[in-house]
Amino acid sequence: MIRTAIFGCGNLGRGTLRAILRSEDEKAVGVFTRRERAEVISEGNVPVYSANDILSFENLIDVLYVCGGSADDLPTLTPFLAEHFNVVDSFDRHSEIGAHLENTKKAATKGRKLALVSAGWDPGIFSVVRLAAKAVFPNGSAATFWGEGISQGHSEAVRRIKGVKDAIQVTIPIKEAVEAAKNGRIIRSDNSLTHKRHCYVAAEEGADRGRIEREIKTMPDYFACYDTQVDFVSEGELYARFPSMYHGGLVTASSNENRSEAKMCFELSMKSNPDFTGAVLAAYGRAVFAAAKRGRTGALTVCDIPLADMLPPSIDKLSFL
Amino acid sequence: MIRTAIFGCGNLGRGTLRAILRSEDEKAVGVFTRRERAEVISEGNVPVYSANDILSFENLIDVLYVCGGSADDLPTLTPFLAEHFNVVDSFDRHSEIGAHLENTKKAATKGRKLALVSAGWDPGIFSVVRLAAKAVFPNGSAATFWGEGISQGHSEAVRRIKGVKDAIQVTIPIKEAVEAAKNGRIIRSDNSLTHKRHCYVAAEEGADRGRIEREIKTMPDYFACYDTQVDFVSEGELYARFPSMYHGGLVTASSNENRSEAKMCFELSMKSNPDFTGAVLAAYGRAVFAAAKRGRTGALTVCDIPLADMLPPSIDKLSFL
Repeated sequence: MIRTAIFGCGNLGRGTLRAILRSEDEKAVGVFTRRERAEVISEGNVPVYSANDILSFENLIDVLYVCGGSADDLPTLTPFLAEHFNVVDSFDRHSEIGAHLENTKKAATKGRKLALVSAGWDPGIFSVVRLAAKAVFPNGSAATFWGEGISQGHSEAVRRIKGVKDAIQVTIPIKEAVEAAKNGRIIRSDNSLTHKRHCYVAAEEGADRGRIEREIKTMPDYFACYDTQVDFVSEGELYARFPSMYHGGLVTASSNENRSEAKMCFELSMKSNPDFTGAVLAAYGRAVFAAAKRGRTGALTVCDIPLADMLPPSIDKLSFL
Repeated sequence: MIRTAIFGCGNLGRGTLRAILRSEDEKAVGVFTRRERAEVISEGNVPVYSANDILSFENLIDVLYVCGGSADDLPTLTPFLAEHFNVVDSFDRHSEIGAHLENTKKAATKGRKLALVSAGWDPGIFSVVRLAAKAVFPNGSAATFWGEGISQGHSEAVRRIKGVKDAIQVTIPIKEAVEAAKNGRIIRSDNSLTHKRHCYVAAEEGADRGRIEREIKTMPDYFACYDTQVDFVSEGELYARFPSMYHGGLVTASSNENRSEAKMCFELSMKSNPDFTGAVLAAYGRAVFAAAKRGRTGALTVCDIPLADMLPPSIDKLSFL
């Protein structure tokens, strides 16, 4: 059994724990929280420890899943932990992956540990599809769509607006753009032209709804460049309408070169984003354990992982060829 | 530049050559044929050599693509060549991959070379998708469909019947089965229940069409267990209707476990099966070259390959994360 642990007890931490509990070859030694231990509900009788105690587990954990936020948490947390543990994280700020990988690599190399950064579904499984398509068709084109599904980052951005009690933001790929991409017609890769955003907002009583809507629709990066719709709903309606953090998306790739015309499309839908992401992390945790056992140190991404390393040992990889 | 060569000048050999000619980091040293050299039309001014001369190229070829048939050719040819060259083949008899891998491994290890067997789209790219799905959902279910497209093996089987001048067999997945699989409903994995077969036959003048149709429909393994339709057409109609060896298929995977409900679907369509397969071989050739340079010997399958190794060096892998 691979001895694993989870650092961070939010949605992703709990999703990862559930994936480990379903797994035949990973066991959870513990979950580590920066909150009050009593506040944290664990599952499967896995003990909850204080984050402050993590370093005393240095020899008891084979793989540590670092389940924090990509904006503020992981850029410092993953390198810090990678010096002491083999780690897996889900850092998802695409443009900053290079820098995060370098920082993590330095720390992991120093501690002679192995880290894998940016696992999940995008980056992660979608990256695997994009890379495979690029390898087969170096001159082909590809497009990625997200949704229809709930974006945590965008929902959070709306929640921070004054007068908003709670909010959910649904990302919706524009149908015509998806069809064009599926049919191998090149589309502009600007996400704001291929996606629209729909915000469901539960406002505080007496809040100025006009101002809230304006603040959403003019928010740079998040909404201003998108076709954004804002609907006000009651808190009750919000929770009834969105009982789970569903998400999904698709990657298309095509080649139009002489005689090599081909199209690929990978579609994914999930009922719970953190549970699916956790399942992906648990699979890459196996791969990190396998590579570390072979003596590998430093930091990797999903590009560097042979798929065979992600499988539980009971599965005969040849039967899937 | 990776110095490559192609052994076998059939459709797949020519498709692989075209992929190499499009590639920025592979060059074709030559193509090797077991036919009369004068019979072989090369492309891109790549010289044609006799297969008998192959061993004199031992130090001139980094990766040799073995482009032969899986039934009679590759089981002996790949191990023979793997003792002298790093090789890639497209052996596609799923149930015999284990034995083929072992035979090839013995030979390659003896010659301190590296081989990769069973690349292509299935086995190959489809295997990568099935393995990724299994890694993330060890208890999930998956299904594979082939078509709509032309099966070379089945077309060939029809052509061998007395009185058949030429024939094309189209494999068609049954729509209801595809929809059920896409929606995560478990379907019986028996291919004969999920596919039908449509044969277009150009018969010789005066041939007994009733007998030909009976011989097709009762042919064990190939047709007897399938819903098979046989249409007689003229040679002209046959070539007009099927100008290219188009093919495709899809892999679906799903998990219905508590909280981890998710669905994946990977669809592929190609205008020319041998050209697409050749493009996949050329990508895995890069990976074999990279792994061999790191000192790896023996035999691998696509499960063992990190995607980063399949990319041309000019491509920044991190930009695809």
